[in-house]
This record gives sequence, C-alpha cells and structure tokens, in this order.
Amino acid sequence: MTEKLYKKTILKPSLPKGVRDFSPTQTANREYLFGVIKKYFKLYGFLPIETPAMENLSTLTGKYGDEGDQLIFKIINSGDYLSKIEDKNLLNDSAKLLPHISEKALRYDLTVPFARYVSMNRNDIEFPFKRYQIQPVWRADRPQKGRYREFYQCDADIVGSTSLLNEVEIVNLIDDVFAELNFAVSIKINNRKILNGIAEVCNCEAQFTQLTVIIDKLDKIGIEGVKIEFEKSGFEKNTIGNIVEFLNLKGTNAEILNFLNDKLQNSKIGMEGCEELKTVVENPNITLNENNNLEIDITLARGLNYYTGSIFEVKNNDARSDFKNSISGGGRYDDLTGIFGLPDTPGVGISFGADRIYDIMEELNLFPSEASSFTKVLFVNFGENEANHALMLTKKLRQKNIAAEVFPDNAKMKKQMNFANKRNIPFVALIGESEINNNTITLKNMQNGTQETITFDEMVLRLS
Amino acid sequence: MTEKLYKKTILKPSLPKGVRDFSPTQTANREYLFGVIKKYFKLYGFLPIETPAMENLSTLTGKYGDEGDQLIFKIINSGDYLSKIEDKNLLNDSAKLLPHISEKALRYDLTVPFARYVSMNRNDIEFPFKRYQIQPVWRADRPQKGRYREFYQCDADIVGSTSLLNEVEIVNLIDDVFAELNFAVSIKINNRKILNGIAEVCNCEAQFTQLTVIIDKLDKIGIEGVKIEFEKSGFEKNTIGNIVEFLNLKGTNAEILNFLNDKLQNSKIGMEGCEELKTVVENPNITLNENNNLEIDITLARGLNYYTGSIFEVKNNDARSDFKNSISGGGRYDDLTGIFGLPDTPGVGISFGADRIYDIMEELNLFPSEASSFTKVLFVNFGENEANHALMLTKKLRQKNIAAEVFPDNAKMKKQMNFANKRNIPFVALIGESEINNNTITLKNMQNGTQETITFDEMVLRLS
Repeated sequence: MTEKLYKKTILKPSLPKGVRDFSPTQTANREYLFGVIKKYFKLYGFLPIETPAMENLSTLTGKYGDEGDQLIFKIINSGDYLSKIEDKNLLNDSAKLLPHISEKALRYDLTVPFARYVSMNRNDIEFPFKRYQIQPVWRADRPQKGRYREFYQCDADIVGSTSLLNEVEIVNLIDDVFAELNFAVSIKINNRKILNGIAEVCNCEAQFTQLTVIIDKLDKIGIEGVKIEFEKSGFEKNTIGNIVEFLNLKGTNAEILNFLNDKLQNSKIGMEGCEELKTVVENPNITLNENNNLEIDITLARGLNYYTGSIFEVKNNDARSDFKNSISGGGRYDDLTGIFGLPDTPGVGISFGADRIYDIMEELNLFPSEASSFTKVLFVNFGENEANHALMLTKKLRQKNIAAEVFPDNAKMKKQMNFANKRNIPFVALIGESEINNNTITLKNMQNGTQETITFDEMVLRLS
Repeated sequence: MTEKLYKKTILKPSLPKGVRDFSPTQTANREYLFGVIKKYFKLYGFLPIETPAMENLSTLTGKYGDEGDQLIFKIINSGDYLSKIEDKNLLNDSAKLLPHISEKALRYDLTVPFARYVSMNRNDIEFPFKRYQIQPVWRADRPQKGRYREFYQCDADIVGSTSLLNEVEIVNLIDDVFAELNFAVSIKINNRKILNGIAEVCNCEAQFTQLTVIIDKLDKIGIEGVKIEFEKSGFEKNTIGNIVEFLNLKGTNAEILNFLNDKLQNSKIGMEGCEELKTVVENPNITLNENNNLEIDITLARGLNYYTGSIFEVKNNDARSDFKNSISGGGRYDDLTGIFGLPDTPGVGISFGADRIYDIMEELNLFPSEASSFTKVLFVNFGENEANHALMLTKKLRQKNIAAEVFPDNAKMKKQMNFANKRNIPFVALIGESEINNNTITLKNMQNGTQETITFDEMVLRLS
C-alpha cells in the first residue's frame, strides 16, 4: 500500500454479492468439515491434486452449455487490453468482443480442470488414477439461499477403470463421510442406461436429452408438472403414459429391479443398466451405517449429459432439518478427456457440496465444540516483568502443544477478563510477584470460576 | 458439460502462464508446509479467517501504488457488459473503460481484504485481534523463477495493540516455524523510526520516501549503485556521505544499537526507534533456536510506506541452499483500517512466503517422506469373489485408520504389481481361495520383497 491510501476519501467497505467472509469459528468449522471429507478420501486411496484458479478461457468454454458459458467469470487481459482491437465493430458487441479482451477465466467446476490435468500429465499418471481435489469454484449465478458465487467442491474420481467395484467404493465413501458428519442421508442411485432403456421401450429415443431434462425437474414441479412439460415438448400421449408408469414406480430396491427387468426386456441397453445397477446395489460390501440408506430412484436423471452409466445423488434425510436439497452428486462417464486429446478415459466420480453440507451442520448444531476451540489459556498482563515471565511460560506450554497467549497490553484487569470471556478462552493465568517468587501459577477456570495456585507441571495437566 | 463437448475439435490443453498444477506429492508436501505454519499460528493464539477471492475493484484500487493497480486481475461484468456504455469515447481508452466494464477483481494480497474485514466486522471483533489467513493471491506480474501469478500468502497480524510484546511474539513465531521446517534463517529487524531519524540527522527529511526506496535496492545494486541512485535523485553530496556511513555499519546488535544511540541523539523520532528496537531485541524471551539468528539491519527499509515502526524480513541462511532471497516479511503500522472508516487500528504482522519456502524445501529435500505417503496397502484383484473379500478387509482396515484399496480391475498380476511399485505403495496383499478359506492374508513387503501369510490382526500391526 502506498501513501495514496491515506489521501483517498473513506470507503464504506462492502463485499461483492454472492461471496462471503468466514469468521474464525466458521473457518474452523469449515476446516473440520473438509478434514472429515479429506480423511475418507485418503483412507479410500484417493490422491490429492490442485489446479490453478485461472484456466485458459478456451479450456472452459463450450463445456457447460450456453447457459454455463454465460456464468463463467472472465478476466480482462492485462495492460492495454483494447490496443489489439482492429475491427472497431467488435466494440458494439459484448459477446464478440469478449475473446479479444479476455484469455483467462475462473474455474467453474473441478471436472474440466481435472480432465485437462489428466490429459496434460498422462505420461506421469498411473492408471487407474484415483484423485481428490478440494478447491473453490466460481459461478456468476443469481445468489440465493444455499447458492453462492464462490463455493467449494470436494471431488473424488477414479479414471481409467470400468469396474463396478468403483461404484461400490463410492457408495461406501459417501456413507462413511456422512456417518462421521452425523446426519442422516439417502443415497439415490440410478443408471443412465436404464433411462436409455426407458426411452427405447417408450419410443422416444430421439428425444432422449429432453427426456432426461424433464425427468430432472420432477422434484421441483411434481408428476403433473412433468406431464405438462412432456406435452409441451411434443411427446406422444401413449409415450407419456408409459414414461409416467416408470416414474410412479415405488418399492424396495429388489422390487424395482424386478419391475425393470420385466419392463426393459426388449431394450439391450436397458437390460445392461439393470445388470449394472443390480451388481452395485447387491454387492455384499454395501452395508451402510444405520442412519443412511441406498435407494434406487429411476427418476434420478442428473442434468449433465456426459454421464453414461451409474448416477448418484445424496439427499439430506435428517428429520431434524428443513433443508432437503441435493448435497452431493456424481456418476460414471465413458470419456472424460477426449476433448483434450486423450480418448478412452472412462471413470466415475462424486462431488460433495461442502457449502450446502456446512449449512445443514450449522442448522443442526453438529460441529463439535473442539473444532473451533482456540487458545487454551490467557495470561493476564500485570506489567513488564510479569508479562515477560508469562511469555516464558507460554513458550513452554506451546512446546507441549498447548495454545497459549499473553494479553499484550497492561490494561485494566476487568478488560482483560472480559476479553477472555468473550473469546471463550477456558482458562486465565494470573502471575504476580508472589507467583514469580514461588514459581507457581494462579489458574482460573472460566467455566466454573474456581481458582487454584499450582506448579507449571500441574498447569500442563489441567490444560491437556 | 453438454454434448458440445464431443462435437468440438480437440484442444491441446495448456495452462495460462505463471500458474501451476500441483501433483499428488506436491499437494501433500504443500499441505505439510501449511500445516506447520498453521500449527504455530494456533499455538500463538492467532484465529483463522477467510475472505473471498473476489473483492470489489474499489476496495483494491489505490492501495498498491500505480504499478500495483496495473497488476490486479480484473473480472469482466457478467452479461452484456458493454450495454451501459453511453459515452462511446470510452471505447478508445483501456484505462477509462475499465471501471465501466469491471466491478470486481482478484485479491492482490491478504492485508487489504483483512483491513476491510476488520472494518466491516468491528462490532463482533474482540481487540486486540490476532488473526491468521492462508489463501492464494493473484498478481499479473511477469513470471520468473520463484515468482508466480497465483501464490499463497500465510499472514498473521495482531491489530488493536501497540505493545512491543507483539514484536517479540512475532520473532519467536518466525523462529519456531523455521526450526520445525528445518532450515536456517536470518531474521532481519529494523525500525522505520530509525530511518526517519537518519533522514533527520542527514538533512533529507523531504526526500524520505525516495530514501527508503533507494535503501531498499541495496541488496540488488550494492553500495556503489545506491550512491549513484542518490546522486541521480538530487541528494546533496554531504547527505549521501552521511547516509552511507549508516549503511556501511556492521557489528553485533549491541554495537549497532550503541552507534545509533550516539548518532541519532539529535532526532527525537530516531531515538524512539532505537528504544523500540532495543526493547524487542533485548527482551529476555528472545532465545532463538541454534540455526537461526536475529540481526539488526538498518539497511532494511521494506518498500511499503504503510509501515511506521518495527520492520522484519526473513532470509534463507542455509549453507546448503542457492536461494538466498527474502522468504517472509512484515512490520508495524499505525493505521490499518482508516481508509475503510475505522481509524486508530495499529498493529503488527508477518507474511510467510509459502511458495518460496516450498521451493527451498524441495531444493534441500526437506519434506518428510510421511508427508506424501498415501495408500498403505493394495489388495491384488484376482476376480469377483476375491475382490469382494478384499473389499471387506479394506473396510475393516479403514476403520483402523489405515489407507487401503483394492485394484478395481481383474488385470494381470504383473500389471497390478507394477502399479503398486510406481505408486510407492509399501505393501501388497494377496487374497486367493486358500486365504479366504483360512481367513488369512498373504502380505508382501514391497521394499524388501519378503512375503508372509498372516491373520488380519497381525496385518494391522504391520501396517500401523
């Protein structure tokens, strides 16, 4: 910062809409959440990578649909960014001008950067490659409750393997993470090949993309809304009736599999989907924690067209919570990296929506208090000599891994005690002349108000 | 991603210049480095906060000088960003157009966002406020060795206190961090008031900013270069001679303090600087680890004009390393938040340059191998039954906090063993029919090639 800082008029500080600061408690709780997710990523053998916030615009555009392209945050070229514009007509058209004044953009998800990474580092990677990545992404979406312009994704993918064992692992991974986070979830599973099968047996293969887009809206608009959408999109009456029969299907996983086995007999791809779904759901290692369940849900479509096999979505299923949205999702794809020149990289992945999970945990008060417990003991400052003695003791405490600090200023006792209270520091240490002479510490427990004069070793025991 | 992905021509993937991907080993080693810094931040009582990558452009501009303003990455407004431009003359001038098409920018450092945070949250913060923040920043600098366009800063500041005890804590914090990272550093310390004093006694107060800017270059251009710069800037011959006498000063901290005490007698502010420096350097709690030292260096100026008292810089002092640049720095300021409407917030801070520290640790091979040790055991896949049995065992291992995985595909044995080798997985488990029947595991140690058939509990012992 330069002198200009002091010459300028005073600014009323504010944040861009849709982005957030995190306070110490929020930051610590978020770190706890990321820590749990990361712990299971590691236990399952996923390896961490990180990619830069900025990618070449050409890496990102065209991967998320026209709507997605609009939501990518673009960065203006450095320096005299207009100097290379020769065709002045470009200056009348935001869209046409854009590629001439912007070459870089902020990461929109972790999947496309991962595909780029795999393609660029193909010779150094051992396949199957299990990677995890926990980083923020940015989208110029309209902000609303639970939707932010900067939010974290926590992705784990296995690429270079078609084995359905990977799907079993992903179900178990999801189950383990939410069991430790301590709220109930329902893991929905489906297979895109079953949707292909439904399209085949209902005679609407040509409208497959529309079919998935409309089914995807079922949660929001209900079965009657879905029927109207099908009509608007020109689906035949008979076809709609047949599709709705599938969508209305309820039952246990075994009952649904039986129904599908029966109804999709005439579709080869549909039967493949049934077989895959059955293999995953009935694997003997799918033994979930008691709060969670795995449900076949053939109304699950996942909007993204690159999914080709298994698809997952995790919904909050906790009776105590009002927030029932989707909190994680993923699926299998045939070809992650073809667009970047490396064909035939099939894989399967899951993305944990950390910000939505955080909101639920805050709502349900699920963060353990230790996650945001900071300083264990504050030494009151009674003046230079006492403070230096206290500082010597804090150094010894820190060597024993105990967070300790001395109030830096010789302020009034009341102010210092207030500070400890408001900061939720559980112990205050008082060192006066007699404590220095006797090599003792007077330790006050701020929770119950008791006070005792003890040795350093005794203090360590109290604080450990 | 949409179908477009598959229709577009193949892209040769690349990264914008100056930014980097991090491989699994690099990511894990960086996490180790951040972990050590964070550990000491916490032990010293600093609280974590996080701020968004995007700030309002008005929050950032004017804080880093004209040159700094040029290096801020600006984000183009979403949607039809040109539609609000009425004055078409703006379209001929990059600089004038900029504020009309960009309202947001990427964080350039952690100090200005911190000042904004403190100002916005003044009513919720207990002062003195000790905060730490570990996040990336972005600068459109010319990339070169050790200089990146995306890099991490690790900042700790205490605001709302003028006590020099904070400086003592910062010196100890620096010392502790580098002692654990395990390479030798020299902590340089000075006080801006001493530079003010030198300007006073050398009769060049009016040229104070120039004085500090030129002194700051001493490292790069040497004492003769500095003399030439002073001449060019119109400093008087006598003045230059007197300044150079200060700059040539060598000796122990006590000798330097004596010299300054003598030479700055006629400068009130200079004597204040001496007193402050003495208080910090001679505090009885400054007892550094044996590899590190604290050196008064009156040629240390720190370019940033907002420093008003103590200033610090940390240099790599390790005989084994070729990289002797500055790796951390900080200092005391009178007024952090005035520009944001909250006057009188003095403080002192330190910023660890994580990327440069990382480069040195990589050069010196200082990352412990455990930092990047991932999966402990890989189960070879001999087919469906064996793989399912293996998966059951990995679940039990993970419950005991041991990272384990099953090779997902039933590939050739040699391929699976190669995979384990290249991934540096220390143990491979072989489960065939006889192991399933006998409830045993054949465990191969990949380092020494030995192989033994053991029970699950014995396996846990080997892997723990």
